[in-house]
Formats: sequence, C-alpha cells, structure tokens
Amino acid sequence: MGEVKLLGGLGFSPYVNRVEMALKLKGVEYEAIAEDLKNKSPLLLQYNPVHKKVPVLIHDGKGIAESLIIVEYIDQVWEGPSILPKDPYQRAMARFWAKFIDEKCISATWKACWSTGEEQAKSKDESVEALKFLEDEIKGKKFFGGDNIGLVDIAANFIGYWLPIISEVKGVQLLTEEDFPNLWRWANEYCSDNFVKEILPNKEALVARFKSR
Amino acid sequence: MGEVKLLGGLGFSPYVNRVEMALKLKGVEYEAIAEDLKNKSPLLLQYNPVHKKVPVLIHDGKGIAESLIIVEYIDQVWEGPSILPKDPYQRAMARFWAKFIDEKCISATWKACWSTGEEQAKSKDESVEALKFLEDEIKGKKFFGGDNIGLVDIAANFIGYWLPIISEVKGVQLLTEEDFPNLWRWANEYCSDNFVKEILPNKEALVARFKSR
Repeated sequence: MGEVKLLGGLGFSPYVNRVEMALKLKGVEYEAIAEDLKNKSPLLLQYNPVHKKVPVLIHDGKGIAESLIIVEYIDQVWEGPSILPKDPYQRAMARFWAKFIDEKCISATWKACWSTGEEQAKSKDESVEALKFLEDEIKGKKFFGGDNIGLVDIAANFIGYWLPIISEVKGVQLLTEEDFPNLWRWANEYCSDNFVKEILPNKEALVARFKSR
Repeated sequence: MGEVKLLGGLGFSPYVNRVEMALKLKGVEYEAIAEDLKNKSPLLLQYNPVHKKVPVLIHDGKGIAESLIIVEYIDQVWEGPSILPKDPYQRAMARFWAKFIDEKCISATWKACWSTGEEQAKSKDESVEALKFLEDEIKGKKFFGGDNIGLVDIAANFIGYWLPIISEVKGVQLLTEEDFPNLWRWANEYCSDNFVKEILPNKEALVARFKSR
C-alpha cells in the first residue's frame, strides 16, 4: 500500500491525534515525524505550502492536509472498520457534526478557557449552546458513530480529552457531568478505548504544558 | 428516487446555487422553495435547527444542511457525471480546495468589497494571497475539475460570478484579468456553461440588490 508518513506525530495536537486514530483503526503502519511548529521543516512547507500546518499525511510521496480530509482519505484507501457510515444520509450527518465541532465547538471552548472578562462570558455562552447540540446528538448512543467509534468521535477528541484537562488547569467549569451527562459519559467512554489510550498524549505532560502557557 | 425539495431556491445565494448546480449536473428534478431569511419558515427551522440557514436539501423527508455536504450527498446518491473525482488522492485534493475557498476566499473577498480603511486593506491583502493559490491551481486546466465542472468549480461559484459583480458595484479592483489571468479565464468559462447560465441569478437583479445595500 506504499509508504506512510505523518508529519506532526509525537506532538500534542488534537488534529494530529485524529489522523493517528484513523490510522490505528485501519491498522496502518506509519512513520511519525515530529514537527517543530516554531521552526517548520522543509518537508512541511513542501507538502502543505498553503496552510503550513500539521497534520500532513504523506502517502506514497503525495501529501494531504486538513485532518478531517485525511481521515476521509484513510477511510477510502484502507480496508478495515468503516470510519464513515456507508449510507449516504448517515454519511452526510457525520460530516455535518464533524464540521459543527470544528466550527462551533473547538474555538469557542478554547476561548472560554483562555480568555477573560466579557470575551470569556461570550465564548462560554457560545460553548454551552454548541455543546448542548452535541449532548442531544450523543443521547442514547455509545459513540457518535453508534456502537463503534466513527468520524464524529474522532473529530470530537478535543472535547473528550483536551477540554476537560484545560478546564481543570484553568478552573473553568464547562463540560460538567451535571450539565452534560451524556457528553460526559461519552468522553469517558471514548478515552477508555484501547486505541485511543495508545495515542492520547500523557495527561501529566499536557497539564504541565498548559500550566506553562 | 423519492421527493426532492430545496429550501432557499429562487434566491440570491451562492451557497444555494452550489446545490442547484449539483442537482442540474445529475439531472435531478426538484421543487425549489423560496425562503425569506428575515422571516424563516417552520420548514427551515425544522430541518436545520442548528444553523437555521439555507440551503437545506430535503430528500424523502430527510433534511441535509451545509452546501458542500449536500453536494457530496447528491454525488453519492444520484447517477450521472461525477462531481468528485473517484481517485482517493484527487478526491482529497478537491475537498481541500473547496474548504480553502470557503475558509480563505469568500469572507476575505466579501470583506474587501464591503469594508473600508484599514479593514479593507487587510482583507484585500488576504484576498490576493488566497486568490493567488487558486490562480496557480487553475493554471493549464479548463476547470478545477479538469475537463469538466467538479466540486471545486461549484464551490468557487462565488469567485466566478458574484465577486466580479460586487467588485464592479463597489469599484474595488480585485479579481482583475491582469493580476489573475487564469482565474479570470476560468470565471468566464464557468459562467458560460449552459447549466450554470440556467441557475445563476440575473446580473441586473444582483447589481440592483448590491446597490441598494
């Protein structure tokens, strides 16, 4: 199936983690190449000249950027458990929620943790509104993908792992068990998955990283 | 194949136009339902409760939102010319450029036309930078999709039709033949396509609309 390299591996990025998870699910062997974003490698600039960001998947010498696009690529190219549903409507819904997470959840919850004053209040409101939609969506299901981890679970990894850690470090109440019981249960379920556990960055290291910011 | 309705049809939205174009390419019969965005219909609120925006495709009673997701759905469900390439790498590239247009081109060029002063200068710079990438991408090709209209062409319809009209109304020099000869040629090529001509809003009506803003 050709050589697979992942630029940005071995780092602390929820976006890179999405790709790592997709590769794990499909059982794809790959070379993880660390990337120093303060001193970007010629490889990164060559393969993602537009955004100059990780992750970049290099497969057989061809580079692909944008985490969700890479995950779809992996799902199409390699055999193994399906990451996107086969049914066109379910497929569209999975893409809808993954996009929703990228556009409405990540930056709002990130800002709610790192900003102060009025900006924080505004982002907190936005976060709660967005998380409520996810709370409804996960209700009655083990994973967003149903019985198995799928595109939306992978997309939501920031919500499941990073967000609770950042909230704890910053003392911001956001994704609480009381307010979002189903999403909370999902976060625990997701982070208990054996593949997920293998690729998530170490909690202490992440806490230290956020404390030093 | 079931009943097809398009909420937001008959309007002036480049996003709705994307879906209309995909339906045209596949030869799908559908009912276009006009939507008054100042007084949103119960149907829109029911089928897109998250964003409350058009377009929404209702197929067999199921609603799908987000223009590019709808276009992918149409491509999967209906026979006819392929909108996305079948090859996984080309497919990923098409998604990459469509996303790039949504995130880097549309809002920057829109702002460059409607803002003033420093904000305008900044958006103009961002627009030029983004359009340069598209200029390189279209070089030597008839359409972004190759010989035929594909996902990226459909995604770029705002650049091909709306942008030159708004620029003219506002007297802003942006997508000029001198600076972007290949993109300019593409815009003319795209707008001369028979299907595209059938669905693009009337130029005079669009000019009047922008002048009254």
